[in-house]
Amino acid sequence: MRLARIQTAGGPVEVVQHGERWHAIRDMFSEDLEYTGESYAGDVTFLSPVRPAVVLGMAHNGSASDRQLAPEAFFKSPRTVCGPDDDIVLDRNIGTVNVEGELAVVIGSTTRHLATGQSQRHILGYTIANDVTSVEQIGFGGTLLQAKNGDGYTPLGPWIETAADPASLGITLLIRGVAAARSATSELAWSIDEQLVYLSSHLELGPGDVLLTGAPGTSGAVRPGDDVQILIDGIGALRNPVVRGRARAAPPSP
Amino acid sequence: MRLARIQTAGGPVEVVQHGERWHAIRDMFSEDLEYTGESYAGDVTFLSPVRPAVVLGMAHNGSASDRQLAPEAFFKSPRTVCGPDDDIVLDRNIGTVNVEGELAVVIGSTTRHLATGQSQRHILGYTIANDVTSVEQIGFGGTLLQAKNGDGYTPLGPWIETAADPASLGITLLIRGVAAARSATSELAWSIDEQLVYLSSHLELGPGDVLLTGAPGTSGAVRPGDDVQILIDGIGALRNPVVRGRARAAPPSP
Repeated sequence: MRLARIQTAGGPVEVVQHGERWHAIRDMFSEDLEYTGESYAGDVTFLSPVRPAVVLGMAHNGSASDRQLAPEAFFKSPRTVCGPDDDIVLDRNIGTVNVEGELAVVIGSTTRHLATGQSQRHILGYTIANDVTSVEQIGFGGTLLQAKNGDGYTPLGPWIETAADPASLGITLLIRGVAAARSATSELAWSIDEQLVYLSSHLELGPGDVLLTGAPGTSGAVRPGDDVQILIDGIGALRNPVVRGRARAAPPSP
Repeated sequence: MRLARIQTAGGPVEVVQHGERWHAIRDMFSEDLEYTGESYAGDVTFLSPVRPAVVLGMAHNGSASDRQLAPEAFFKSPRTVCGPDDDIVLDRNIGTVNVEGELAVVIGSTTRHLATGQSQRHILGYTIANDVTSVEQIGFGGTLLQAKNGDGYTPLGPWIETAADPASLGITLLIRGVAAARSATSELAWSIDEQLVYLSSHLELGPGDVLLTGAPGTSGAVRPGDDVQILIDGIGALRNPVVRGRARAAPPSP
């Protein structure tokens, strides 16, 4: 099943796909989808499929050798989240910027088992993420804040696929229409399950939170004017243009 | 002027203080406050005064010598934010946990100058923050994610003081009613202005975002059963109890 958010004349609407049509629903996180009766077809405009409160990314998770390190995650600002076709903005003096094609996990609701009282966190589904990174800013401190939070640095979409098997999905990165990298989630150091066990032992996750699971080699440098597409087998394609932005202010010197 | 959010029978309400009474308003971020006509007095229950999309903290900013390092900030999950009297939850096997008394900056709205088109980000005001930190988790990676994101790890409140001068505010930390530390924001390595220049050169800030400006020695270890109070001159006092939580799951091993 595919869930999405689309732009309409009345504002953003959550939708679910049936055949060629996208049917409006009230809350994609509810267990039983409630339909409003509206539906859309043809050339719909997809937005980021969720608006996460928390965006997490896995650090050093791109290949089997990264398993020699303990798992580690970083935060991205939810203000970096954008949708398909939205601009990735490269500040003028930011240095090398990489796009990173990644599978993103969208956290679902919690259900509480009535008999045991145990609560269980569900995965709503999977979407495509571009974890844009200012490579030369990585060295400035360990938090990655300077490297990961430019305008439009977290494109998500176009929709959430609820039925995908995350263990082995092919990921292809195209820059200006040319294949720049091809790999699969099976190459990641820590599996999706292991990542979620790690994270949920250190912080609370809630509905709509997004985990960028790491780029298994699916990264490449971009310049203003480039067009980036990330294809994940069984999900779809996420496309964003790269544009030139403002000049960044020089930070205060030590 | 003091702005707050209080709990009422009808749910959380934004309020502004006049004399002894708290008057309900529609939006604390609007330039001209719109009053609903309701007001409250006496024993009101304060909530976190804002619900931030982004929570940032300054790393290594506690004393003048920290100025030898470049400024660096980290994210905290907004799901860690709680209000006065809410529980700080210590997981069973988390090791030493410090409370840190800090001045917090609350980001306000942006105004655009009609003639120049330049936009300016305003500070709404200042509140008190407790940047709770699992000390022994700091070493696990540079992102501080494991150290800073337990349940109730970011108490904020009790209100936002819009008129404070952040350059030199005394901060006192009381644990079980006993003074554990006393210092002032003037001891911080990077001033509030410098912190905001640094941050706004690397990411977008928006209304309600919160910056924890660093603990100038105002930290101390706590245990379940402790009562923590942070007093900032000219603002007020933020009080929270410390309670025992669940046992954390062991993370996956490398």
